[in-house]
Amino acid sequence: MKYAELTKEQLDTLLAAQRREYEEIAAKGYKVDIARGKPCFEQAKLAFGMLDAPMAEDFPKSSLNYGGLEGIPEMRALFAQILGLEPSEVFVGGNSSLNLMYDTVQRGMQFGFDGCEPWNRSAIKFLCPVPGYDRHFGITEHFGIEMINIPMNEDGPNMDLVENYVANDPSVKGIWCVPKYSNPTGITYSDEVVTRLATMPAAAKDFRIFWDNAYCVHDLTDTPAKLANIMTIAKKAGNEDRIFEFASTSKITLAGAGVACMGMSEKNLKEALSHITFQTIGYDKVNQYRHYVFLRSVDHIKEIMDRQREIIAPKFKAIIDALAQNFGDDCDIASWTEPRGGYFISLDVLGGCAKEVGRLCKAAGLTITSAGATYPYGKDDADRNLRIAPTFTSESDLPAAIEILIASVKLACMSKLAEEKE
Amino acid sequence: MKYAELTKEQLDTLLAAQRREYEEIAAKGYKVDIARGKPCFEQAKLAFGMLDAPMAEDFPKSSLNYGGLEGIPEMRALFAQILGLEPSEVFVGGNSSLNLMYDTVQRGMQFGFDGCEPWNRSAIKFLCPVPGYDRHFGITEHFGIEMINIPMNEDGPNMDLVENYVANDPSVKGIWCVPKYSNPTGITYSDEVVTRLATMPAAAKDFRIFWDNAYCVHDLTDTPAKLANIMTIAKKAGNEDRIFEFASTSKITLAGAGVACMGMSEKNLKEALSHITFQTIGYDKVNQYRHYVFLRSVDHIKEIMDRQREIIAPKFKAIIDALAQNFGDDCDIASWTEPRGGYFISLDVLGGCAKEVGRLCKAAGLTITSAGATYPYGKDDADRNLRIAPTFTSESDLPAAIEILIASVKLACMSKLAEEKE
Repeated sequence: MKYAELTKEQLDTLLAAQRREYEEIAAKGYKVDIARGKPCFEQAKLAFGMLDAPMAEDFPKSSLNYGGLEGIPEMRALFAQILGLEPSEVFVGGNSSLNLMYDTVQRGMQFGFDGCEPWNRSAIKFLCPVPGYDRHFGITEHFGIEMINIPMNEDGPNMDLVENYVANDPSVKGIWCVPKYSNPTGITYSDEVVTRLATMPAAAKDFRIFWDNAYCVHDLTDTPAKLANIMTIAKKAGNEDRIFEFASTSKITLAGAGVACMGMSEKNLKEALSHITFQTIGYDKVNQYRHYVFLRSVDHIKEIMDRQREIIAPKFKAIIDALAQNFGDDCDIASWTEPRGGYFISLDVLGGCAKEVGRLCKAAGLTITSAGATYPYGKDDADRNLRIAPTFTSESDLPAAIEILIASVKLACMSKLAEEKE
Repeated sequence: MKYAELTKEQLDTLLAAQRREYEEIAAKGYKVDIARGKPCFEQAKLAFGMLDAPMAEDFPKSSLNYGGLEGIPEMRALFAQILGLEPSEVFVGGNSSLNLMYDTVQRGMQFGFDGCEPWNRSAIKFLCPVPGYDRHFGITEHFGIEMINIPMNEDGPNMDLVENYVANDPSVKGIWCVPKYSNPTGITYSDEVVTRLATMPAAAKDFRIFWDNAYCVHDLTDTPAKLANIMTIAKKAGNEDRIFEFASTSKITLAGAGVACMGMSEKNLKEALSHITFQTIGYDKVNQYRHYVFLRSVDHIKEIMDRQREIIAPKFKAIIDALAQNFGDDCDIASWTEPRGGYFISLDVLGGCAKEVGRLCKAAGLTITSAGATYPYGKDDADRNLRIAPTFTSESDLPAAIEILIASVKLACMSKLAEEKE
């Protein structure tokens, strides 16, 4: 349906009915949350074997003491396999890849990379594909780094724009990327986009791609997306120092209690370690070893992820089905992505309505990610994008969440159109 | 014995015999290590119950997901009891208190404290009681912070010097302290020293005491040292924002896989969290909860530490007995501390000999902490101080370590005296 093509009278009638429907739903006193990309308890339970297995006696003694700054060899090798890197290119850290990203940006600010001037010394910029991950933008904003929006296409960020900035502006030092099952759009960068990122000329020698491969094994369908190996391509072009890759087991084992890693050239890793050696004696190797014993192999990780998929794919489907049912057939007030993996559905509503949808959802008992959060500085100029995180809510709560979301989108957008017709 | 009072002939005779003895020991091919304050495997085993207990089903669901930036309430309360703070003054982090210290200094450098200018903006200084902890000095050196040596007395740092610097030089922003069973001297700050630190006037509003209470429950005798509660005293003087306290369970449960904490005023903690919230979604709450279940109470921690003491106190005794036997009776080439807790014995040898002792030890198969490491920039101008870490070596290896150490001290010091008599 094209709501914009309705007459004022038709729209007013529909709007009045929609307002009643929304108010009935709001009166039900629901309390549901689809705001953050958090695994649900059933997913966490799949990792309980890791917590309960008697294993201390089997641990190598070296895991039970200080040292081993770069992580245990077993986990370096496993992450290397997952990411298509050499074990010598992998650093295994603590529980949080976000922490590794923040610390990496902080090292750029404080010390600089590869002999270049510390980023603190002058005004620098990061490119931010939008919509994107709010916590990435939070880090760069916190350090006072200017953020430049880059629109996302179906196959990744608009590369003409990216190349132009990176080739000509030496103050552009980085780009945030979630290249597979992107947060929040769910798209995966095409081979061409990955190649252009890895090979494009850069005005700044210390330009870095923050490659947050958070959803590297997080498929939701039988036709998983294939992400090209950016490190392999970068190496051929002599650009391997450009890549800072990140991943973690947070959404494989336990959110907040997993193991995170960084992948980078041996030269970059050596430089990182030259700072990290002052920061800590080493990350939690017991947790690293616990993970190694539990995860074992890439194949076993695939099995775990298949079981997770059984739990969460129906939740994605329920939301997408409801969106299709209500806004299908080329509807002009809502469009959305159908991700083949990852943790999010990206929902675009009629321009100028996203904040109002958020307000209506909240008033009816549904927490969603703040409108604007998927943009640097929280500013979605078109006020269109909403991020939907289906995983955390229980299946029994999901119908309520969907009911509120659909009713709020309809009410907000119809109200806006009706106003415009005044 | 006073070696300096021997005639040249007497000394030459002793030296020749000592050289033969050293060479015989060196020829035995020992390989032992008393370099780092690492717990031994028997100590680690005391915590295996923590790793093996089936417990996941008992975990609160909130521990099994993201969030809870300030740490789980149970561990905040337990650390608060240990340190004499309010739970609201305790932040529970990851596996490393050193990491919390580094990050705190980094926040001072990047963002500044309490509205003051970031430390990066001008040349700043830290006071460093010496001998002290090499990794503290490593952090400040890495950030280019000028370090000023403050001699340690029996009851803590020379407070006349400290007060003079802090009152008059606004570029003095911090002091490193290990107030209980100090690394490496083993002394505990007296009530007077703690009071003077907490109440002294400071030229810099953002002067901070880095209070590394690493050995708060690490007693080795029946007469444990009592450390005054610096936060209580600071509060009375209105100086509570001056204190950054740190501790961890690394030497209670597992080195490198424990839980670390920071204690600070609620105002400071709020400021710290305003930055940490961009750094991570939260530290490993599963490990925090695992620790809570295992440690339970201050009384139970005391029991664990008593069992650790049974393992390590004999190692301290063996070394101290050997030192007394060889260098007792007011000997002029070696003096040492007899710590009532902590992880170190501080050994002072004849000036100008510490590096040579280190070289001889190494050549005979004994690794000890590099001479000079206990001083900022690795520079012990008197070349006197050596740090002995008795815990890690097995009891069966300890006699070899002692044999090499004693022979090396004697040979180095006698050689030096003999040279001086040429």
